[in-house]
Amino acid sequence: MSDISGVKALVFDVFGTVVDWRGSVIREGEALSRAKGLSVDWPRFADEWRREGYSEAIGRIRRGEAPFELADALHRRKLDELLTRHGVSGLSEAEVGDLNRVWHRLQPWPDSVPGLIRLKTRYVISPLSNGNFALLTNMAKNAGLPWDCIMSAELFGAYKSDPATYLGAARLLGLEPGQVVMVAAHSPDLRAAQSLGLATAFVSRPDEHGPGGRAAPPDGDFDVVANSFLKLADALGC
Amino acid sequence: MSDISGVKALVFDVFGTVVDWRGSVIREGEALSRAKGLSVDWPRFADEWRREGYSEAIGRIRRGEAPFELADALHRRKLDELLTRHGVSGLSEAEVGDLNRVWHRLQPWPDSVPGLIRLKTRYVISPLSNGNFALLTNMAKNAGLPWDCIMSAELFGAYKSDPATYLGAARLLGLEPGQVVMVAAHSPDLRAAQSLGLATAFVSRPDEHGPGGRAAPPDGDFDVVANSFLKLADALGC
Repeated sequence: MSDISGVKALVFDVFGTVVDWRGSVIREGEALSRAKGLSVDWPRFADEWRREGYSEAIGRIRRGEAPFELADALHRRKLDELLTRHGVSGLSEAEVGDLNRVWHRLQPWPDSVPGLIRLKTRYVISPLSNGNFALLTNMAKNAGLPWDCIMSAELFGAYKSDPATYLGAARLLGLEPGQVVMVAAHSPDLRAAQSLGLATAFVSRPDEHGPGGRAAPPDGDFDVVANSFLKLADALGC
Repeated sequence: MSDISGVKALVFDVFGTVVDWRGSVIREGEALSRAKGLSVDWPRFADEWRREGYSEAIGRIRRGEAPFELADALHRRKLDELLTRHGVSGLSEAEVGDLNRVWHRLQPWPDSVPGLIRLKTRYVISPLSNGNFALLTNMAKNAGLPWDCIMSAELFGAYKSDPATYLGAARLLGLEPGQVVMVAAHSPDLRAAQSLGLATAFVSRPDEHGPGGRAAPPDGDFDVVANSFLKLADALGC
C-alpha cells in the first residue's frame, strides 16, 4: 500500500461497487411479473437495460456523439424500448415511471452499509457516480447509505471517466486530489482517477454481473485491494 | 397553512437558522484568547466578520460588483484584516487557517438535530446555503446534522437570493418548486423562494444576533411559522 496518511475523503463508484444493480432490478421485475401476470426474462432485461440504456448511452455522451442527459432520462428511453422488445404492454404511465425509479431503490451489497459506517468515523465519504443527484439522494435514503454528502457527475456536466468529475470532487471537498481515495470495483474508473493524482482502492464485486463471479479482477496498481468494505475499513485503520 | 401535501423535500438556510454562528465564533475566539493570552472583543469581532466578510461581500457578488468567490475565501480575507484591526499578532499560518475554519465547526441550536432527525423520517432534508460545499459537509460531520445531501450556492455559481439557487435545488432533487419547502429564519430568503413557487417555513431564531431577541420577526405570508425545528416537525406531521 502507498502512503495514504494524508487521505481525508473516500469517494465511491456506486452501481456495482456499493449496490447490486442487477439483483435489485431482477427482484423488482419478478415482483412486477407476479403482480401483473407478466412473463419476462428479467436477468436478460436487466443486463440489456444496464448495457444499452446506461453504459453505451454514457459512452456516446463521453465521446461527444450525444448531448449530456441525466441517467433517469437515459434509463427511461431504454425502458420504453425494452418493454416493447420483451412484449410487455398494459402498464400505466405511473407504473412505468415507478419501474424506471428502480434505479433509485437499488439494494446495497451486505457489507456496504456496515463498512461505510466504519469508514465514516474517520473519513468524509461520498458517492462519485454517473447516477444523477436525485437518484443517488433517493437511493441513499432508501438503502440507509450514510454518506456525508452526495456527488454526482451531474454536478460537473460530464461523465466519468472525464477528468472534470474526479478533480471536481476534490475541489468541492476543498482537498487536493492526493487527499481523496477513489473506491470502485472497476479498474478503468480507478486508473482514470489515479492518472489525476487520486489514491485508489479496488473492491472486488465478483457477482456484479450475476452469480458465478464473472466480474473482472483488478487490472492496475492500486493503493488498496480488498474484497469488501469491511476489509477496506480494516486496511484504512477504521 | 397552505396545502403542502405534495411536499417531498425541505431545504434549509444554515447560518442563523440551523447553527448559532455568533455564539460559536465567540466561544472559539474566547478559547483562543485563553490559549494565546489575547485580549479581543469577540462578540464585536464575530459581528464584524459576519457583516463585512460575508453578508456585505456576498451582496457585492450578487450585484455583479465582484466576481464569485467561495465563503471560505471571503472569510479568510476579512479575517486577516480583522486580526490587524483588533491588534492580534503572532498567530501562525496554521493557527489563522484553523480559526478561519471555525465556520466549518459552527454549533447547532439545541433543537436543530432532534428536529432534523424527525423531519428526515418523512422528507428529503438538505442545506441550501451560501456556505461553500466543503464548509457545509464538514459542518454536518462535526455537528451531526443528518442531511440527506448537501446543496450549496457553490453548485449553482450564484448566491441566494439569486433564482438559480432555489430553482437549481429543486431541479437537482428532481422536484417541482412547489414540492420543496425553503426553511429559514430570514424573511428575504423566504420571500425570494416563495416568488419562484417554493413553499416556505419561517423558524424564528431570536438570539441569532445575541441574547435578548433582537432578530427580526417574520415579514411575509409564509406557509409555516414556528419557533423551533421541533415545532416545524409537529406542523409537518413528523
